[in-house]
Amino acid sequence: MRLRLGIAYDGTALHGWARQPAQRTVQGDLEEALARVLRQPVALTVAGRTDAGVHATGQVAHADVPRAVWEEQRPRLLRRLRGVLPPDIGVHSVEEAPPDFDARFGALRRHYVYRLTDADSGPPPLRRADTVGWSRRLDADAMAAAAGLLLGLHDFAAFCRRREGATTIRTLLTLAVTREGDLVTVRASADAFCHSMVRSLVGALTAVGEGRRPPGWPAALLTSTERSSEVPVAPPGGLTLVGVDYPPDDDLAARAVVTRGLRS
Amino acid sequence: MRLRLGIAYDGTALHGWARQPAQRTVQGDLEEALARVLRQPVALTVAGRTDAGVHATGQVAHADVPRAVWEEQRPRLLRRLRGVLPPDIGVHSVEEAPPDFDARFGALRRHYVYRLTDADSGPPPLRRADTVGWSRRLDADAMAAAAGLLLGLHDFAAFCRRREGATTIRTLLTLAVTREGDLVTVRASADAFCHSMVRSLVGALTAVGEGRRPPGWPAALLTSTERSSEVPVAPPGGLTLVGVDYPPDDDLAARAVVTRGLRS
Repeated sequence: MRLRLGIAYDGTALHGWARQPAQRTVQGDLEEALARVLRQPVALTVAGRTDAGVHATGQVAHADVPRAVWEEQRPRLLRRLRGVLPPDIGVHSVEEAPPDFDARFGALRRHYVYRLTDADSGPPPLRRADTVGWSRRLDADAMAAAAGLLLGLHDFAAFCRRREGATTIRTLLTLAVTREGDLVTVRASADAFCHSMVRSLVGALTAVGEGRRPPGWPAALLTSTERSSEVPVAPPGGLTLVGVDYPPDDDLAARAVVTRGLRS
Repeated sequence: MRLRLGIAYDGTALHGWARQPAQRTVQGDLEEALARVLRQPVALTVAGRTDAGVHATGQVAHADVPRAVWEEQRPRLLRRLRGVLPPDIGVHSVEEAPPDFDARFGALRRHYVYRLTDADSGPPPLRRADTVGWSRRLDADAMAAAAGLLLGLHDFAAFCRRREGATTIRTLLTLAVTREGDLVTVRASADAFCHSMVRSLVGALTAVGEGRRPPGWPAALLTSTERSSEVPVAPPGGLTLVGVDYPPDDDLAARAVVTRGLRS
């Protein structure tokens, strides 16, 4: 049977999602924790393969386990996982999913948030893990104007690091820039993002925010069919995957037999 | 002349505010950073002498420095402090204050927030520094009812660790308990708090929240004239000093000559 997992992590000390030899990764630590608790190997498929240093509050993955194991472990699974996982990785929900639920290929939309601050005093100490300090002042209004021109279905090749076989044509649904005091927040939603796309979009917007580029510049790059070396890639620490959307059927079926963080 | 400083810290690795030999403290690290940047000894007086492990987003302190030093350093002071301070301590504002401004004795009200979660999955990884995991379910409504009975002018001796000469009679202005999902937040405001008072109030409320005590129990302790050993002290990591209020005259005079985090 198939399980759907809700996952959160502070990516600061992690070398990204994907398992790598001799590096701490989210996949590596999670598969090891699941194997210990369920006493058998578990393979995870994930919605967003985040890079080293990127965080998540709303990551989703699926895994297949024998039904007997699930039924036996279910009542205490979240607590047991908490007991064996390091404190920078958490599993806040495990639910039975429809057999054809696919965390990666079934995802309709991914939602990311990027946090940066241009305060002279740097990132707030308690949010320094997920807030990047920016040494130049940022014009958030200019960034918002530039962001609006990027929405829709485009070839985002200029903003993508190459990955074999992966399309760079995406539908950007949201790219919103807001300022609250010293904090500038960029929210980005799309059907999917190519490799380093959010950080490249944020990097391009900061060039506009600093006044080094006009607001029309990022959108002008959409005519390119390959990565632009002029687009800076913003540091990973400001980026958090906050949510993934699935078709309602997948959601409803999953909710019918729920094991949530709150009550098990 | 007198300076007023706005200070934030992640207290996880700090042994509280007050300077101690051979321990990292907020006062110790800040006075050292100020001395390096201003090239002379600086002594800080603080609004809230927080305990080891307690955080702040809105701590306030004052210090006296020669006017010539202030005038010279002012344009780059926040950036220079950022350059020498460790990342878990930040100074987000330095302003000229009236000569009689006193961060400690002039404070009208202190505001604290305590964050705890009873999720099986433990604290959210990105907020684990300032959110305490609670292993039992908490009835936030019962906690809120108990909290309401504690408001007003009382002798809070039952909730105070002894400090020589310090009164335990305080006016508790706010003690509000709210739940959002798995997160239970306690907000506490008073003219001043005696030693360990917020953590003792939260500890008493968790006893109510777990159902071990009735909602009237914390208020019944107000008749005591000494610390009650029955009151648990909640762990420091959930507590954050979020703000300090001063009389309007002090605020206005300080604002007139402002050096803020955002623009200097």
